[in-house]
Amino acid sequence: MLPPVNLRPPFNITRASHVILHVADLARSKDFYVKIAGLVVSDESDGVCYLRGLAEACHHSLVLVQSPKGATCKRIGMRVFFDEELELAHQFFTARNLPAAWAEVPHQGRTLHVEDPAGTKIELCARMETRPRLHLKREIFAGAQAQSLDHYQLLAPDAFALCGFYGELGFRSSEYLAHGDKLLGSFMYRKGTVLDLAVVEGQGPRLHHFAYLVPGADQIFAACDLAGNYGLADSVERGPGRHGPGGVLFVYLRDPDGHRIELFTDHYRTIDIEIEPVRWEAASLSTRAHWGLPAPARWYFEATNFDGSPVVDPAVRPNPETLESYAQKLSSQS
Amino acid sequence: MLPPVNLRPPFNITRASHVILHVADLARSKDFYVKIAGLVVSDESDGVCYLRGLAEACHHSLVLVQSPKGATCKRIGMRVFFDEELELAHQFFTARNLPAAWAEVPHQGRTLHVEDPAGTKIELCARMETRPRLHLKREIFAGAQAQSLDHYQLLAPDAFALCGFYGELGFRSSEYLAHGDKLLGSFMYRKGTVLDLAVVEGQGPRLHHFAYLVPGADQIFAACDLAGNYGLADSVERGPGRHGPGGVLFVYLRDPDGHRIELFTDHYRTIDIEIEPVRWEAASLSTRAHWGLPAPARWYFEATNFDGSPVVDPAVRPNPETLESYAQKLSSQS
Amino acid sequence: MLPPVNLRPPFNITRASHVILHVADLARSKDFYVKIAGLVVSDESDGVCYLRGLAEACHHSLVLVQSPKGATCKRIGMRVFFDEELELAHQFFTARNLPAAWAEVPHQGRTLHVEDPAGTKIELCARMETRPRLHLKREIFAGAQAQSLDHYQLLAPDAFALCGFYGELGFRSSEYLAHGDKLLGSFMYRKGTVLDLAVVEGQGPRLHHFAYLVPGADQIFAACDLAGNYGLADSVERGPGRHGPGGVLFVYLRDPDGHRIELFTDHYRTIDIEIEPVRWEAASLSTRAHWGLPAPARWYFEATNFDGSPVVDPAVRPNPETLESYAQKLSSQS
Amino acid sequence: MLPPVNLRPPFNITRASHVILHVADLARSKDFYVKIAGLVVSDESDGVCYLRGLAEACHHSLVLVQSPKGATCKRIGMRVFFDEELELAHQFFTARNLPAAWAEVPHQGRTLHVEDPAGTKIELCARMETRPRLHLKREIFAGAQAQSLDHYQLLAPDAFALCGFYGELGFRSSEYLAHGDKLLGSFMYRKGTVLDLAVVEGQGPRLHHFAYLVPGADQIFAACDLAGNYGLADSVERGPGRHGPGGVLFVYLRDPDGHRIELFTDHYRTIDIEIEPVRWEAASLSTRAHWGLPAPARWYFEATNFDGSPVVDPAVRPNPETLESYAQKLSSQS
Repeated sequence: MLPPVNLRPPFNITRASHVILHVADLARSKDFYVKIAGLVVSDESDGVCYLRGLAEACHHSLVLVQSPKGATCKRIGMRVFFDEELELAHQFFTARNLPAAWAEVPHQGRTLHVEDPAGTKIELCARMETRPRLHLKREIFAGAQAQSLDHYQLLAPDAFALCGFYGELGFRSSEYLAHGDKLLGSFMYRKGTVLDLAVVEGQGPRLHHFAYLVPGADQIFAACDLAGNYGLADSVERGPGRHGPGGVLFVYLRDPDGHRIELFTDHYRTIDIEIEPVRWEAASLSTRAHWGLPAPARWYFEATNFDGSPVVDPAVRPNPETLESYAQKLSSQS
Repeated sequence: MLPPVNLRPPFNITRASHVILHVADLARSKDFYVKIAGLVVSDESDGVCYLRGLAEACHHSLVLVQSPKGATCKRIGMRVFFDEELELAHQFFTARNLPAAWAEVPHQGRTLHVEDPAGTKIELCARMETRPRLHLKREIFAGAQAQSLDHYQLLAPDAFALCGFYGELGFRSSEYLAHGDKLLGSFMYRKGTVLDLAVVEGQGPRLHHFAYLVPGADQIFAACDLAGNYGLADSVERGPGRHGPGGVLFVYLRDPDGHRIELFTDHYRTIDIEIEPVRWEAASLSTRAHWGLPAPARWYFEATNFDGSPVVDPAVRPNPETLESYAQKLSSQS
Repeated sequence: MLPPVNLRPPFNITRASHVILHVADLARSKDFYVKIAGLVVSDESDGVCYLRGLAEACHHSLVLVQSPKGATCKRIGMRVFFDEELELAHQFFTARNLPAAWAEVPHQGRTLHVEDPAGTKIELCARMETRPRLHLKREIFAGAQAQSLDHYQLLAPDAFALCGFYGELGFRSSEYLAHGDKLLGSFMYRKGTVLDLAVVEGQGPRLHHFAYLVPGADQIFAACDLAGNYGLADSVERGPGRHGPGGVLFVYLRDPDGHRIELFTDHYRTIDIEIEPVRWEAASLSTRAHWGLPAPARWYFEATNFDGSPVVDPAVRPNPETLESYAQKLSSQS
Repeated sequence: MLPPVNLRPPFNITRASHVILHVADLARSKDFYVKIAGLVVSDESDGVCYLRGLAEACHHSLVLVQSPKGATCKRIGMRVFFDEELELAHQFFTARNLPAAWAEVPHQGRTLHVEDPAGTKIELCARMETRPRLHLKREIFAGAQAQSLDHYQLLAPDAFALCGFYGELGFRSSEYLAHGDKLLGSFMYRKGTVLDLAVVEGQGPRLHHFAYLVPGADQIFAACDLAGNYGLADSVERGPGRHGPGGVLFVYLRDPDGHRIELFTDHYRTIDIEIEPVRWEAASLSTRAHWGLPAPARWYFEATNFDGSPVVDPAVRPNPETLESYAQKLSSQS
């Protein structure tokens, strides 16, 4: 069902590191992430704002770039452990005829730009500048007190193929969604939590969302309350609720450009070799959560394009139960 | 807009006290309230189960009566401070040609059965047997750790008229919902919190829900999680979310007979004479919450009949925005 | 054991209302209450700062008065329900040869200054100006998010006598501390919670502390963390812990002048006439909490004098177990 | 100051895995860990009880062995990633003339018994049987809802030397305590959190404590409340409070045999190569926490011996500020 995993990958990706987004109005977007999510600004200049979570020592986990290009994702970032592994990564991508080019990126060590087979734009680096962790500096806490970037979710036209690619790079699956022998999506990890990277079948490559960890249930509600107070109630797209896979409390918000952020509470650890992926059976993407309303159609079908990467439809368009179809059913019952 | 309040009422109703429900299967209903809401059983015999919240010293705040009569509410209970006030209450109801009859009720002091002008069946008493409070007995905590009954909500065909009646009895309004000069509903209190009794316009008299206080956001989610774990995910009817009026976190569940319980977090205190009611403007019942999805139609229109009280339609049927109409609008946009 | 309670008191005190403190440095004290407790400023002028909790509609629950007089309490405030009751109060105090004088107080309705038999300086009023409640305005939350003033504790040389006086005024006891037939202290209430006023035997009249309600365990820790971050770690005098009587989570802090504030979580409701006070047996003031360290001696013996009220020793000086005597015992065991 | 770290260690220890304790009364100890900490029993037979945290898939993280040997620690367990690494470990320990012997251990894969240079008894394995994670099974939650074993702390007569040994094995330091150029202790990690292993100078080798992660502040108090309710109030040895190093909320309890468990809330992630250890300056072990009372002397000086390992005093006995010395100072001030 799941493609094989190479437990001795050619180089060591350690974790999901950062996300770089194009935004139309930098001040407005910064406000959103600072006041609602609770990120802090590490640096800002020349139309670029670097943000990090309260508990992060790395310089940035979210980079907002003012741009007339429209609301696209420039790149997602991953960390490797040693600088030397970037060479191995370069060889790996080049050997597969995948784009791989060295780049100079402010506040980061040596950086390699690559693309996965779906066209996802990625940058790899081993180092960043550091900043003090602020997780105990309560006097500056704001918003939902986002602690650290945890993971991101990609949509790809062939989930099985892309999971196979990341399996070669050592990503293991903690939980996955399948229908019969068709893989619909998988939560893949490197850092020993439930996931660094979710790969879900859909028109892609696109960035479905990125997710920050928050301290508890209270902060899930805080994000909603603050969105409401700032006149952005409609940015609360889905939740608060609890996932089926992963089992975490979540809320999804859309930022002013429509990029999607998830805020969620802690989940379990995965490190040991004996751990088997948990299977969720579903006829479509509708992850059977334990309770709660289905997501609206836009949660399933809207996502952020990667700048310059053409998108491709999956062979079969997913047909999940949506809030709309559920409500339609409710209407017809009464 | 709001009817007048008699600040020196003829007798002193101190608080919402209890709810008596007919249920089809006592064991199943008890399980629901014990395992999901977290109530504790004070006594059970002869097809009647008496429950209370963890922090309650009174013998019961919820009484479940096994009955073939169907899922109706037998009575809601209110407390008066002194036994002597029951006489004054008897005079008051009798003088208005409203039903008033003495009753013997187990575990309660002298009890008076009355009906308000809408036909709501009520019992008044000054005393109950007591039981130890269990709010520190963590080893027996279960479910959402419901602490105490806080309030109940009635549907009545003429909200203004019924608010006027309770205003005569000293109930003040903390927050209310109106459209122009039409009162749609009001949160009325005696005990110095936001409410003991909500009166909302709709087909009535019916019991829309009763509400227990829970310790925090975590317990709101606990109720949902447990409902899901016990195979009752569909009992989560609305939420988790935050109210417009009152501003509390809430979740509404339907019990196995369809009776509706709200679990919610603390709200503010109202005691002082200078406090003015807060007005919420709405074209219909759709309380404009700060964020979150509208309630499904059944939340607005389904409620529990009072045993033996015929229901009457309001002059104008409310037409709130519902989950169904909202989802329909979403569908047509995409 | 407990003195009698007059359930039909001569006038209706509804709740503990406010505290007026002399402070040496207004800016410094305001900072403490805003940044650590989380109070908000309603008004400030002419060396007086008026503060309230996030959920309060009343103009002030804490008044700080810059003064060279030293760190004394000017008065504690109580609410009556109707203005007319102030006349009844005037008669009551005058008839007992206790001080009673009308006063003009900014932001309050008609106000009466009185003293109880121990010399506690009190002001009574029925009305204040109102301000919007801010309990949903998360973007301005700070400190421990103090919601509302709940109660204050007095030290008095004869606890039984002073409880008797407040019993005449309708204050009932929820829990009390006694040794044999000697009353050591009592939690007395008017507003239907565990207490408005604690009376404890000790050198007095003095104000031991006043207490604000906070949302949960997190905010108890927030107060400590912020005190530490602002260089005021030593202001955390006792806790976090859980009380024996009342059963709440608490922390006590000393403000820059040494006035003591308690931050605590919710407790149960007391309204009904059948509720009996809970007795705690103790040889001295050492309330046997369920777990945790004894309070340091200064928590027992240091308190705020009332401006102009001479203090009197109790007949027998209490001899509670203290942190110091407990640690001494630990030392001798090892 | 800190000894060097080998970032390419000879074999890959992935995390702190488990603790095996001798206990005098298995039923009593099991009760303590199930009812207060909230662990669940995976298996029990022949005087051995295997427990795990709610979020753990591994068979056991705590093993209690009924034994007349007295309250000693049999071994602490660490995980390696691949079975093959056990061979490398065997070579490594043997080459250093350290004990290394193969063992058959129920519910574990191939297991290697080793000792570090201080005499700490350790077992290494790559695999365990798995059990379902129970972190969403709220209906069985108990106690403080301990989620997973996080770390343990060793006392060793020469902290620098032992940190150097673990540095060779790839353990990095997140935070450490030093006085001038003397290392007093260090938090060392493999799994990308703040620590797996703390090494602190003191009479050793001894196990100071082992620590389980709990969901939040509420569960810290729950452990205390339950200890109190079960008549074990004295088992609460230190806290609730917040650490200096690590910055987590904590409480330390002593189990019925005197073994020490810490329950604590989440802390930050450490993975990246650029992260530098945080230094805490202290004249002695007294970690300067942000607020709160010093630990009692027994917290510093009492610990669990390893079965069969003789203990050695450090060159200089630590002289931390204790609760006793702090209280003595308080006494002399008043």
